[in-house]
Amino acid sequence: MSGLRVEALPGLPEIRDGDDLAALLADAATRLPDPGLRSGDVLAVAHKVVSKAEGRVRRLAGVEPAARALALANEHGKDPRLVELILAESAELVRADAGRLICRTHHGFVCANAGVDRSNAGADDLAVLLPADPDHSARALRARLGCTVVVTDSFGRAWRLGQAEVAIGLAGLAPLEDPRGTPDADGRVLVATHVAVADEAAAAADLVRTKTSREPAVRIRGLERHVLAEDGPGAAALLRSRELDLFG
Amino acid sequence: MSGLRVEALPGLPEIRDGDDLAALLADAATRLPDPGLRSGDVLAVAHKVVSKAEGRVRRLAGVEPAARALALANEHGKDPRLVELILAESAELVRADAGRLICRTHHGFVCANAGVDRSNAGADDLAVLLPADPDHSARALRARLGCTVVVTDSFGRAWRLGQAEVAIGLAGLAPLEDPRGTPDADGRVLVATHVAVADEAAAAADLVRTKTSREPAVRIRGLERHVLAEDGPGAAALLRSRELDLFG
Repeated sequence: MSGLRVEALPGLPEIRDGDDLAALLADAATRLPDPGLRSGDVLAVAHKVVSKAEGRVRRLAGVEPAARALALANEHGKDPRLVELILAESAELVRADAGRLICRTHHGFVCANAGVDRSNAGADDLAVLLPADPDHSARALRARLGCTVVVTDSFGRAWRLGQAEVAIGLAGLAPLEDPRGTPDADGRVLVATHVAVADEAAAAADLVRTKTSREPAVRIRGLERHVLAEDGPGAAALLRSRELDLFG
Repeated sequence: MSGLRVEALPGLPEIRDGDDLAALLADAATRLPDPGLRSGDVLAVAHKVVSKAEGRVRRLAGVEPAARALALANEHGKDPRLVELILAESAELVRADAGRLICRTHHGFVCANAGVDRSNAGADDLAVLLPADPDHSARALRARLGCTVVVTDSFGRAWRLGQAEVAIGLAGLAPLEDPRGTPDADGRVLVATHVAVADEAAAAADLVRTKTSREPAVRIRGLERHVLAEDGPGAAALLRSRELDLFG
């Protein structure tokens, strides 16, 4: 029998550009009932605090929207300065519809508004971008904290309502479990089922936070069988190329 | 501070048509370290055992593929009898590509092979279908067990690799958390973020099972704030209509 314990780290302060996020996370982890972070633990960190610590925050007042941003903003009822930031973060605008811009980011993630978000940005005229390289961010935190790190964001899903937290950066965890070639409980060989372990860990972490609280970091104990001795391939390994954009 | 405990129920037998699944689940729950199921607990149950108990299993040898199934099977390298079952479960074939049929089921779920699956079916020539009405299945289990029930399946995701477990049937849990209209940590009002709580719970449960083990049921403690006093709207409330098929 195996089990997970999923707990939010208490008492993180508002994070600002240049803060030593690893030190703040390690300190917060000392205030858990069973304190500390150790090898085998998985720490899920909402990207917003990573982005803020890395200075990936933009003041809308300083943004000059170009013609394309002005046109899209007008068409979809959005702030043209925000649209300018979204386009700058995007390799491709996949779809614009119903006031929402679905973008492929420069990292390759397909998500609403290229991950640019005004909520919980710290002030009303600020927008938080995704980290420039979330796998690198995760690796840097792992090197300091000595545990697996998953940097997360909330993505919508095709054909389903609601957002689920997914992994956008990853160090020290197998992103996918591949049971192919292993027999199932009846001895039949399983095919074509890769479990998105890192995304499921991100989702599990999200269940213990409220969006209105300051609990961006969540410790998961019990995932040792997916933990790697090295950084591993990162969340980039979860990206499906455009040609294979298919469910299954 | 809040936390989750996620534990697989040990020692369920192979489930067969007509088995009293609720009784078997209740019995297995007595063998957990902190035994039993109570109001406030969330029990995630992989749909396969629900389907098996409800007789939603088909023997391939008894299936006569019609012309459309034969043509699709030939084109995509699949067993024509399996394709016949898939088409019978489908309201619409959304896409056929790379040996995989993406279908909208009669319930409205969009997933590979309309949820028809040969792995862990109990014998090599058996295929397991989705429950006929997974929300009804969940409600029936909840009435017997006295706890929230989530019936789950593994779905692929657009633009991402790997499958994540999602809720296809639900009783006693809010499928979506709607923080709209509540202020964020900075007092700014959040917009447009519905958390897919039921899907995240399904994903969390999946982390403690291996596909090769017989641990279809997982107890989650600590989700009381999302638990309802009544059955609630069910997983049907997670379906996005075709016209709104959009990320976000």
